[in-house]
Amino acid sequence: MEKEFNVVGHRLPMTDAAPKVRGTAQFTDDLTLPGMLYGKILRSPLPHAKILRIDTSRAAKLPGVKGVITGRDIPDRKYGIVPKAKDEYALARDKVRYIGDDVAAVCAIDLRTAEEALELIQVEYEELPAVFDPLEARKAGAPQIHEGIENNTSFSIRKEFGDVQKAFGECDAVLETKFFSQPVNHAPLEPHAALAQYDPFNGELTVWSSTQIPFFLRRNLSNTLQIPESRVRVIKPKVGGGFGQKIDMFAKDFCAAWFAMHLGKPVKFVYEREEVFISTRQRHPMHITVKTGMKKDGTILAQQFQVFADGGAYNSTAPTMIALSCYFLLIPYRVPNLVYEGYHTYTNKPVGGAMRGHGIVQVRFAVERQLDMIAKRLDLDPVEIRIKNSIQAGEPHPAKFIIHSCGFSDTVKKAADAIGWKDKRGKLPFGRGVGLAGASFPSGTNNMSHISSGAVVQWGQDGAVNILSGAADIGQGAETVISMIVAEELGVSLNDVRITAADTGITPLDPGTFGSGVTVRAGNAARLAAISVKQKLFALVAEKLEANAADLAAGDGRVFIKGSPEKGMTLSAALKAYQYSDLPMPIVGRGSWMAPAIEPTTLLKEEGNFSPSYSFMTQAAEVQVDLQTGKVKLLKMVTAHDCGRAINPMLVEGQLEGSVAGGTGQALYEDVIVERGQVVNPSFLDYGFPTFLEMPQIEVIEVETDDPIGPFGAKEAGEGTQLSTAPAIVNAIYDAIGVDFLTLPITPEKVLAALQAQARQE
Amino acid sequence: MEKEFNVVGHRLPMTDAAPKVRGTAQFTDDLTLPGMLYGKILRSPLPHAKILRIDTSRAAKLPGVKGVITGRDIPDRKYGIVPKAKDEYALARDKVRYIGDDVAAVCAIDLRTAEEALELIQVEYEELPAVFDPLEARKAGAPQIHEGIENNTSFSIRKEFGDVQKAFGECDAVLETKFFSQPVNHAPLEPHAALAQYDPFNGELTVWSSTQIPFFLRRNLSNTLQIPESRVRVIKPKVGGGFGQKIDMFAKDFCAAWFAMHLGKPVKFVYEREEVFISTRQRHPMHITVKTGMKKDGTILAQQFQVFADGGAYNSTAPTMIALSCYFLLIPYRVPNLVYEGYHTYTNKPVGGAMRGHGIVQVRFAVERQLDMIAKRLDLDPVEIRIKNSIQAGEPHPAKFIIHSCGFSDTVKKAADAIGWKDKRGKLPFGRGVGLAGASFPSGTNNMSHISSGAVVQWGQDGAVNILSGAADIGQGAETVISMIVAEELGVSLNDVRITAADTGITPLDPGTFGSGVTVRAGNAARLAAISVKQKLFALVAEKLEANAADLAAGDGRVFIKGSPEKGMTLSAALKAYQYSDLPMPIVGRGSWMAPAIEPTTLLKEEGNFSPSYSFMTQAAEVQVDLQTGKVKLLKMVTAHDCGRAINPMLVEGQLEGSVAGGTGQALYEDVIVERGQVVNPSFLDYGFPTFLEMPQIEVIEVETDDPIGPFGAKEAGEGTQLSTAPAIVNAIYDAIGVDFLTLPITPEKVLAALQAQARQE
Repeated sequence: MEKEFNVVGHRLPMTDAAPKVRGTAQFTDDLTLPGMLYGKILRSPLPHAKILRIDTSRAAKLPGVKGVITGRDIPDRKYGIVPKAKDEYALARDKVRYIGDDVAAVCAIDLRTAEEALELIQVEYEELPAVFDPLEARKAGAPQIHEGIENNTSFSIRKEFGDVQKAFGECDAVLETKFFSQPVNHAPLEPHAALAQYDPFNGELTVWSSTQIPFFLRRNLSNTLQIPESRVRVIKPKVGGGFGQKIDMFAKDFCAAWFAMHLGKPVKFVYEREEVFISTRQRHPMHITVKTGMKKDGTILAQQFQVFADGGAYNSTAPTMIALSCYFLLIPYRVPNLVYEGYHTYTNKPVGGAMRGHGIVQVRFAVERQLDMIAKRLDLDPVEIRIKNSIQAGEPHPAKFIIHSCGFSDTVKKAADAIGWKDKRGKLPFGRGVGLAGASFPSGTNNMSHISSGAVVQWGQDGAVNILSGAADIGQGAETVISMIVAEELGVSLNDVRITAADTGITPLDPGTFGSGVTVRAGNAARLAAISVKQKLFALVAEKLEANAADLAAGDGRVFIKGSPEKGMTLSAALKAYQYSDLPMPIVGRGSWMAPAIEPTTLLKEEGNFSPSYSFMTQAAEVQVDLQTGKVKLLKMVTAHDCGRAINPMLVEGQLEGSVAGGTGQALYEDVIVERGQVVNPSFLDYGFPTFLEMPQIEVIEVETDDPIGPFGAKEAGEGTQLSTAPAIVNAIYDAIGVDFLTLPITPEKVLAALQAQARQE
Repeated sequence: MEKEFNVVGHRLPMTDAAPKVRGTAQFTDDLTLPGMLYGKILRSPLPHAKILRIDTSRAAKLPGVKGVITGRDIPDRKYGIVPKAKDEYALARDKVRYIGDDVAAVCAIDLRTAEEALELIQVEYEELPAVFDPLEARKAGAPQIHEGIENNTSFSIRKEFGDVQKAFGECDAVLETKFFSQPVNHAPLEPHAALAQYDPFNGELTVWSSTQIPFFLRRNLSNTLQIPESRVRVIKPKVGGGFGQKIDMFAKDFCAAWFAMHLGKPVKFVYEREEVFISTRQRHPMHITVKTGMKKDGTILAQQFQVFADGGAYNSTAPTMIALSCYFLLIPYRVPNLVYEGYHTYTNKPVGGAMRGHGIVQVRFAVERQLDMIAKRLDLDPVEIRIKNSIQAGEPHPAKFIIHSCGFSDTVKKAADAIGWKDKRGKLPFGRGVGLAGASFPSGTNNMSHISSGAVVQWGQDGAVNILSGAADIGQGAETVISMIVAEELGVSLNDVRITAADTGITPLDPGTFGSGVTVRAGNAARLAAISVKQKLFALVAEKLEANAADLAAGDGRVFIKGSPEKGMTLSAALKAYQYSDLPMPIVGRGSWMAPAIEPTTLLKEEGNFSPSYSFMTQAAEVQVDLQTGKVKLLKMVTAHDCGRAINPMLVEGQLEGSVAGGTGQALYEDVIVERGQVVNPSFLDYGFPTFLEMPQIEVIEVETDDPIGPFGAKEAGEGTQLSTAPAIVNAIYDAIGVDFLTLPITPEKVLAALQAQARQE
């Protein structure tokens, strides 16, 4: 990359790294308020049941208990991030739909008392037949989980592009395969928490929440608790990871708010780890049938998909998930004929929701594995077919995606080279292998009515730049990236920039953190605000320098004439001059940005460009299978990523490495095991996350394409790599031992069983 | 008052009243941060001494102690709010100058350990001769308290207007009297506190402080600790009163910051009540000689003043205090010939500083008492002479004050009528009497280089209005008043307005709270920002209504065409339309305001207009003297006040009532008793505040003059009444028992002694 920038492109540590490392950063649970009370939630022990009666009287009488509520105490309003998918109550009203469903809440002077009170609540249930499999749930006569939802299928989509049947007839090879992608948990290190305070006098509710979407939470609190939106203030403290799990709002938010409003005291809820596993969200388990038709030169002619997503008990982001799962099959490869049938079905199990690679991880695993399978049948090189079918920037797209920049084929080539493809593929000793997979991801979406991102930038006379942004940093470094963009634009150092992000009371509207759109959306808004603030200062400087404001530039703490940089003044002098001018106004600029794109739920009905830009990535993995134990060791992962331009390469690498960790878990380790609706491994001890010991050597290759839409050319970097990690590993396992795994995760048991079957066949 | 406004002029409760009453409001001491440490300060036991050696080793070794520092650990930089008067170190360096001077600081895991550590610090002093009286301190051979300051007199002023000697020759009566005004303590209910946190990584220091002047504190922290101003963030939480005592910064601010910076942990200091009494600030004791010459028709021809202010050990606001004391003798009366000689002198006693009525309370007591004395000699009515000599709006002023509006003579008349002057003065039974006094006060000053006030107003699409203001609400209701001004301008209800005030990290520059300027200065800035934000919305509405933006007005939640109010739309609809327009920018406006006036310290050298506007007030008191015990009971106080227009009459009344309480304390009860440098009554138990039991019936009369400068016509309401309260009481006591008290407070002992002397004479 050319070193034309002072801040952008530099490997700068996150601006909030030190307080986090030193333990002084404040997450929601670190906040205390005078007179604060503690809340706990009573959860359903049954997967499906009518609530006949709840007796809270004994709990309410326990000394120290300040309140006990059930669903009947809260207005009859459903909540949810997707307006047309709202099917959830703050607390269950008539029935419970999964083990862990929210039944009642207590609030007490301390946690121990609240926990004791939970045991005193008596709930009389009438158990109903339950269903745990989405295919069963779709059958006639299956228990109905939500009233009025036929076949328990709340959302479905069928889309055809081109003429698939005709195209299959023209193929040299057609392969149909069934895959299954398992449920996994996001498990952010910070459990979900909320703290609420209410001012009964002016009716203002303030909620501090570990959330990715402060403005959506504001809207849902307003609607559910029936108070004006303008009287709800949501503040996002430091958030310790989300990965999509904190895109939803939860009982803790509504109950903390309700108690605060009715008791006049601040109230805090913090979920236990078990609650995070069972009662928040997980990645949708998916049954996927893929049929791919290919010409013998490797050209993909047609693909057909049938996808059954297991939604668990509620919708959460169902329509978005199913739409993403469909449309992102049309990228990064050119698929001229494609038909997709997808279903989101309720079961009496934990709820599926958005998770890093939302709805795409599952189908991408299937497609990328099957591409290798069909390549093998046609005796083609998996690398070659990926390059051959790669979509190109500017080409017409069947779903009307507009692709301004595309480095996909470069990522394939570079990843293959870096893993040593030519020397290793098919040539390593039995048990060792390499594999590769590709993907594409959006850089944000225009989601669900909060579509624009705003920013206000203020330049103090002390030289400090203050950004007000509604963007939600959940640990990924959004605040650092936005600050770097502004620092670059204003010619100051990153240290001179302070950002207040995500306080709906003072920061402008922003949709929040999802779809990997923060850098592009909030970054563009902040950049525009910075340009506007710069112009205000430049007008004065131009006068002092007897120059044209348009000829001025800022950099390295100075403002100068572009042509003759020696003619200028320090920013500090310029700011002082402004401050002591006749009308020393606050130097404030505003910016706003909205992606030229349609909303994802619209995709259920019609096509359209979905994202301002698309990133591309290829993973290449090398694995060693232990033939005695069946354990797969991921030795190396090459991550070639086209993120347009890395605003901060170190943070991009952090994102990519995190995605490798997540994808490795998906491929080899993680599984939310549910038995008759009961999660049996809801703890860090029982659930098999990869740890640092399982991490491979990671080589990051940045393929920069300088996208014309994003700030300084940036695109997505937060999720895409998660898509291609698992299939790259699975493909490498095939190369290592010649076994086709179609179900994740690939545990040692499965590997051993496969090796034994292989031995029997030989 | 005409009811033309929807919000302004209404009796609305303070927006933060409920959390304060319910105990959920957060003052500095309510804040806790993870890993927080506690600090304490070691204070000098001697009034004047050299520090020979400080041994902190035993304290440092105490388990739980994290740090011990002395003045030598902190950069050699003096601090102070008035740049040219800085003479104080965060911790004493070479010598101590009063009992209570800051010597060393410790920081520990809890308060008890910090206190224990203080006792382990060994300081070796060499005691120096001390001086406790300002007149003694000015003599040759007196101990020198600060190097290079001759006669211990750090500031003095001599001003002559007209020809005083000539004028005295033309008078019918000339009277010279010596007065003494005692030291009193502000004693805000919230003791002084600071909490500091430091991010060693980006070098940002955040200090939460119970301060009236966040931006000055930022500057002083920057200078004293030698870090860039842009890396210091001062946040003002709720503040429980200041009355001028929190205009200064203190050891707690610097030491909390220093420890936070060096230990990497948050550190909190909270002063004990005794420390507030001894080691913060008090009202300057003052020896005042007044000579007044009057014509027999009551015209004041000349006045001559000699004033010795006892500054205690440091300057604090000395030059401002002495200038105010001088110039406010030229208002509210026309004094064509005046000479003033004033001295600020160091003594080895607690430090004088700004206090409600700063430097004027003392001289106003003297003048108003003496006016009655000379009126009696000429057999004139005190009411008549006050009306006769009243300054008028628009008239030329000897000190170049520009008086746009003046309701002074009205306040005299109305106060006299309300107390029943004609029926009571000189006509009540012995022991009961009425008295009256007048005064004038500025509405803010352009103080000390932070001269302008900025505001940013943002209108959310939810309808909520967010104000960013640097103004410091210290309990007086500044946030409410600023919010009301903005609500009025935007046509929304007060409940729709949220204000973030005084966080130097995000709010624009504001000088802070002093000189009763907040409503005019920050209120004007906020009003201008509101107008600017309104214009942005109106542009869109004008388009929709096919009207001219200039013809639009907002009120009662609607925006409409002025001429035909039925043609319009709700603000909520307008905001939604704006938000979903093609370019949904944050709706942000900015405003700035600066008083057309000179800085007060400039007055030491030259005249000039001092304040944007001047308020006027008259107090009329009725007292009953208990002839057996000598106790004076204030029965009634009439407070007639010209504050231009009361933005919130209830808050204005609160201010006036508070001033009556303070003035009553000054007249009758309060006295910081110092014996050889030692304050002997530094507690609420020993110090004689008036309580609710001592409060009289208070009748408030608002004289509205609709000043052209202030927002909606507003002027000062916070301090002026404190000026006239004490002399009104003293004058009433004279009317009751015929004794001239020249020294405050008028304790039962003094009254009894005077009555006994009177009896002996008869």
